[in-house]
Amino acid sequence: MSSTFGKNIKISVFGQSHSDAIGVVIDGLPSGEPIDTDELAAFMSRRAPSGAAYSTARRESDFPKIVSGLFDRRTCGAPLCAIIENSDTRSSDYSEIKDKPRPGHADLTAIMRYGEWRDYRGGGHFSGRLTAPLCVAGGICIQLLRRKGVHIGAHISSLCGIADTPYDPVKLTRADLESNCGDFPVRSASAFEKMARLIADCKAVGDSVGGIIECGVVGFPGGIGDPMFDGLENRLSAALFAIPALKGVEFGAGFAVGSMKGSENNDCFCMENGEITCMTNNAGGIAGGISTGMPIIFRVAVKPTPSIAIGQQTVSLSEKTDCMLNIKGRHDPCILPRAVPVVEAVCAIVLADFLL
Amino acid sequence: MSSTFGKNIKISVFGQSHSDAIGVVIDGLPSGEPIDTDELAAFMSRRAPSGAAYSTARRESDFPKIVSGLFDRRTCGAPLCAIIENSDTRSSDYSEIKDKPRPGHADLTAIMRYGEWRDYRGGGHFSGRLTAPLCVAGGICIQLLRRKGVHIGAHISSLCGIADTPYDPVKLTRADLESNCGDFPVRSASAFEKMARLIADCKAVGDSVGGIIECGVVGFPGGIGDPMFDGLENRLSAALFAIPALKGVEFGAGFAVGSMKGSENNDCFCMENGEITCMTNNAGGIAGGISTGMPIIFRVAVKPTPSIAIGQQTVSLSEKTDCMLNIKGRHDPCILPRAVPVVEAVCAIVLADFLL
Amino acid sequence: MSSTFGKNIKISVFGQSHSDAIGVVIDGLPSGEPIDTDELAAFMSRRAPSGAAYSTARRESDFPKIVSGLFDRRTCGAPLCAIIENSDTRSSDYSEIKDKPRPGHADLTAIMRYGEWRDYRGGGHFSGRLTAPLCVAGGICIQLLRRKGVHIGAHISSLCGIADTPYDPVKLTRADLESNCGDFPVRSASAFEKMARLIADCKAVGDSVGGIIECGVVGFPGGIGDPMFDGLENRLSAALFAIPALKGVEFGAGFAVGSMKGSENNDCFCMENGEITCMTNNAGGIAGGISTGMPIIFRVAVKPTPSIAIGQQTVSLSEKTDCMLNIKGRHDPCILPRAVPVVEAVCAIVLADFLL
Amino acid sequence: MSSTFGKNIKISVFGQSHSDAIGVVIDGLPSGEPIDTDELAAFMSRRAPSGAAYSTARRESDFPKIVSGLFDRRTCGAPLCAIIENSDTRSSDYSEIKDKPRPGHADLTAIMRYGEWRDYRGGGHFSGRLTAPLCVAGGICIQLLRRKGVHIGAHISSLCGIADTPYDPVKLTRADLESNCGDFPVRSASAFEKMARLIADCKAVGDSVGGIIECGVVGFPGGIGDPMFDGLENRLSAALFAIPALKGVEFGAGFAVGSMKGSENNDCFCMENGEITCMTNNAGGIAGGISTGMPIIFRVAVKPTPSIAIGQQTVSLSEKTDCMLNIKGRHDPCILPRAVPVVEAVCAIVLADFLL
Repeated sequence: MSSTFGKNIKISVFGQSHSDAIGVVIDGLPSGEPIDTDELAAFMSRRAPSGAAYSTARRESDFPKIVSGLFDRRTCGAPLCAIIENSDTRSSDYSEIKDKPRPGHADLTAIMRYGEWRDYRGGGHFSGRLTAPLCVAGGICIQLLRRKGVHIGAHISSLCGIADTPYDPVKLTRADLESNCGDFPVRSASAFEKMARLIADCKAVGDSVGGIIECGVVGFPGGIGDPMFDGLENRLSAALFAIPALKGVEFGAGFAVGSMKGSENNDCFCMENGEITCMTNNAGGIAGGISTGMPIIFRVAVKPTPSIAIGQQTVSLSEKTDCMLNIKGRHDPCILPRAVPVVEAVCAIVLADFLL
Repeated sequence: MSSTFGKNIKISVFGQSHSDAIGVVIDGLPSGEPIDTDELAAFMSRRAPSGAAYSTARRESDFPKIVSGLFDRRTCGAPLCAIIENSDTRSSDYSEIKDKPRPGHADLTAIMRYGEWRDYRGGGHFSGRLTAPLCVAGGICIQLLRRKGVHIGAHISSLCGIADTPYDPVKLTRADLESNCGDFPVRSASAFEKMARLIADCKAVGDSVGGIIECGVVGFPGGIGDPMFDGLENRLSAALFAIPALKGVEFGAGFAVGSMKGSENNDCFCMENGEITCMTNNAGGIAGGISTGMPIIFRVAVKPTPSIAIGQQTVSLSEKTDCMLNIKGRHDPCILPRAVPVVEAVCAIVLADFLL
Repeated sequence: MSSTFGKNIKISVFGQSHSDAIGVVIDGLPSGEPIDTDELAAFMSRRAPSGAAYSTARRESDFPKIVSGLFDRRTCGAPLCAIIENSDTRSSDYSEIKDKPRPGHADLTAIMRYGEWRDYRGGGHFSGRLTAPLCVAGGICIQLLRRKGVHIGAHISSLCGIADTPYDPVKLTRADLESNCGDFPVRSASAFEKMARLIADCKAVGDSVGGIIECGVVGFPGGIGDPMFDGLENRLSAALFAIPALKGVEFGAGFAVGSMKGSENNDCFCMENGEITCMTNNAGGIAGGISTGMPIIFRVAVKPTPSIAIGQQTVSLSEKTDCMLNIKGRHDPCILPRAVPVVEAVCAIVLADFLL
Repeated sequence: MSSTFGKNIKISVFGQSHSDAIGVVIDGLPSGEPIDTDELAAFMSRRAPSGAAYSTARRESDFPKIVSGLFDRRTCGAPLCAIIENSDTRSSDYSEIKDKPRPGHADLTAIMRYGEWRDYRGGGHFSGRLTAPLCVAGGICIQLLRRKGVHIGAHISSLCGIADTPYDPVKLTRADLESNCGDFPVRSASAFEKMARLIADCKAVGDSVGGIIECGVVGFPGGIGDPMFDGLENRLSAALFAIPALKGVEFGAGFAVGSMKGSENNDCFCMENGEITCMTNNAGGIAGGISTGMPIIFRVAVKPTPSIAIGQQTVSLSEKTDCMLNIKGRHDPCILPRAVPVVEAVCAIVLADFLL
């Protein structure tokens, strides 16, 4: 496995869904940075299961204990380790999946890769629960970036065809990033209503639903990044695919460029108050791997939660026969509300690695 | 800059569009592998400008001279360096862009990042010409992979709304990967016709057009890769964004998962001839970062060539005023035909790094 | 900071001398490996302060709690995190050094590098206490290596001129590695006596003493490693200098080659029972960065513990004047007895990274 | 193989002794740095065989052709590739060693690692000739460092017991680094005389001789580096062992610390002209992996050239019998004169990677 990432700020994520603890080591944080643990707790709570209609009933305080790297509430230069204890585990829920791999999960590939010794309880290290340490690391980076004037936000831009109001790639402001409505991050109240209803409907029938998350960044300075393998797109995408349910990432106009002419897609330059700027931002704030100074915009495709109550065909590993699987346990009918802060967190980890 | 990539097989790309030479060092190739230079030349020629209607008139033999790493036509374990001389350069074509950054190019970010010393001729290290060394490295990896039964192919799956026949993600065969029609890689003859006509039309008006490339891999064994940061999706996407014009990447069902239910998207398992297999392949052959043994399928969004003959607004760096730019020179109205082998090459580099 | 190391098996060390905890994340261990925690405890106890005449009076159980990466006592493929709580800390002992950097320590460079926010208590992340997590990682690797027939041992080969019997570089056996005498690892009983007396004498006068540790490895297969930057010597030395007190490393004949002729130093080959072997082993088992199959032998120079009771000149950071410092607290008059298992541990981490 | 190194400035070395060319790619050089090719040529000539009594008769111009990364004689930010053609090769000299591995060389380990396909001609990639690209990279870094006030020098501090005047670790100046006498870098004229005579004597009898090289750095700022795995000692030693003949490295007092008391070894602090400085420099300018601001001092042990004319016992790989080997060809009786600039070069590569 390689659950480590980063060049200057290196993170190392550990833990399984049902191990004693999960956590993260962050190596390379600059020293002297104050860490506001209340704010971190507030950020973590956005990812934590809420028990609401669209979330799992599993309850975890999910608050990390920082055991190193801080001194008098500031980073001291030493690696910061944050630990989250796994308390509310019900391993018995997962006994069946030892023999019957769940469709849409990594149960079978885990066996192919790690053999019979893989920790199958709750998906082990493949569990979405491992996004909690990512949020710890990201939540800390968000605080550092904000002090440099960099602000990150995300929203559910579409859920099974229900579209939210997209970010304006040219005029995006910090206020836009912070003004969502509803219980989960959606910009349009009517879109939120429809999404919430769809999720409730899915839950009622034991199904789940996927969607698209759009992430925006303002205040990130131009001239950061490199062409070829070390650009913003390379490292953002490499990190984002650590989020279990992701199946696609696009920057700026993204896949829509496939239907565009050069004369439409090119971002023309103009002078504005003595500064060079772009009239459009189809590039999503990145050209040649390097930030342009415009807002950074990207979207990720999040697949529907694979754990559904509806019966599905699978195989019995012991009997080598087809069989049906009815997944029990507590699962999210839609992971997107909780995935939004995870996307922000991963974005922050990568941008901090570039900037600090 | 960081034009290096890879963990076990490390590549280091060098050169600018108008420097004496461009090339690549490949470090970590296993020893004893025969390299067929005729086959490599044939692969390179797929990327080389053809002079045809849809391509630049710049002519480069583009054939690499391998100066190290081979002994008696086999890899000897030492790093392989391949050099391509830049012969047909016309630096005078680019004198205007020193002052007027081209919309859609990295001309301005290059200055922001490297200052006045950047090599502006032909886009310098940002040039699409740097995909030639990627093809050398990839062309070599393709030969190694084939001997392990792994086959890679790609086609233009859509061009400005004109759709080619997609790969069948379950039944994809090596023959499918190799059976394109027309002058560039398209599966359906009628789609090829329409695409060729569209490109010719764009060229006539001095515009360009973008599209989507679909890449398929058969024979890649299951159980390769890791969750979190070291999965196939992480490393493939990180490498693919080295291709200058890419703005998105998606695996399997990709962005379509955003409109799917879990019951639709999950790939159910079944027994087939005593082996476990998947009934569908929305995962694109990758679950939890690990190969499933099914075909690997991904798509990338390629933006329209930014160099267009149509006049565009830009700014004069010296005069700090808005101005118009009419790009002269020899440019592709559509880069996709030449980008297809580049996508295959980058895919091969990453898969060889995982497998060998 | 970069307290991470490794290519396939990556370790990330965290903690400060007086933080809540110290520990290590080990990423990339193969799955299915049984971990014997009793044996690990026994290994850790060799590094732990004993309270004996040659050791600090600080008492730490130092036993790690493994919070992830194990399932049913075997590695499951997920990153293993081991945590050691810091219990017996007396932060008040260190208040003086906040203003008066201790000669021979990194107190002043820590300020130069991390500013006033560095954790000065007990040396922070620079403390020798951070070798405990190294021993956890190494102790685990030792178990894995032993199952592959690789055995590692070390002894104090010299202490302020008192020489122990060196390893025979050609005939070294596992039994040799395991047969030390006395309370700390020395091969010759008379050398142990003299060393123990010297340490006691140093302690009596508040001074400390340095020495040389020799490490030997048997059973490591030939043909492992690479020339240039990725050889055994490169990676062993890079890792060994993580041990705070090290000032030199030499392989095989080491610095003695500087006084040798080629005809003396070259290891001639001969056939022995149908196998090619070396008649001598001045290379220390490594040629061209690659293991020869002979025992691997290296030595490291360990400086005397910088914390001594004797008064020393230093400066007051606040007053910018020269002043005297009398270090109080509990310190080792000689660190070598406890450093021996640390050297073995670091060696095991590197060799496991190469072999597994 | 892994002939790549570096974190910010990454180098990738390629070539074999008898391949078409050898060279290096340097990725990550800051842009806008003027490169003086005459000065680089002068530096390269220090490593080139001189034909003098103590050197091989092989003659190579060894001057690199820089094919990318420069624009108007300055670095442009793109990777710099330098190529040296192999012209004066006599592959026939090496036909015997295909079957009879040379004692002291990596001929046998090359087969163990790369199989029959290794390039045995002239030692292939293991050849000392590969230090020429290291000198190109180092020679460029030396120019960059000098503009930052950092100066590097080295001398033969001992040759088979003949000792040169060591550097003063406290008062070392740039002038000291530049004032050697004789045909090769020795500080004392009488030491030079004796060394030259010893080398001539060795050559006369077909033997070779080893020695110690001491390297000093002045002007390197304090506060650079990190504890644990990313300190100056870690990365310097990791890089230095890329030099084929090295068997040991020590910093500051080095192995002598093994015979010292803490009260002798500790570098006490004092105020000097309002600045904190060290009264001694046993640390060699590095404490806790971090530069102290004092001169950096280290020494490396260089083994005698393994290629000697005296007959040596080896084995026939084809016949599996003991046999004698008489190495013909053109070899250095002492590699140290040519190794001195290589040590400086590697030091410069590492320090530039830390500083720039």
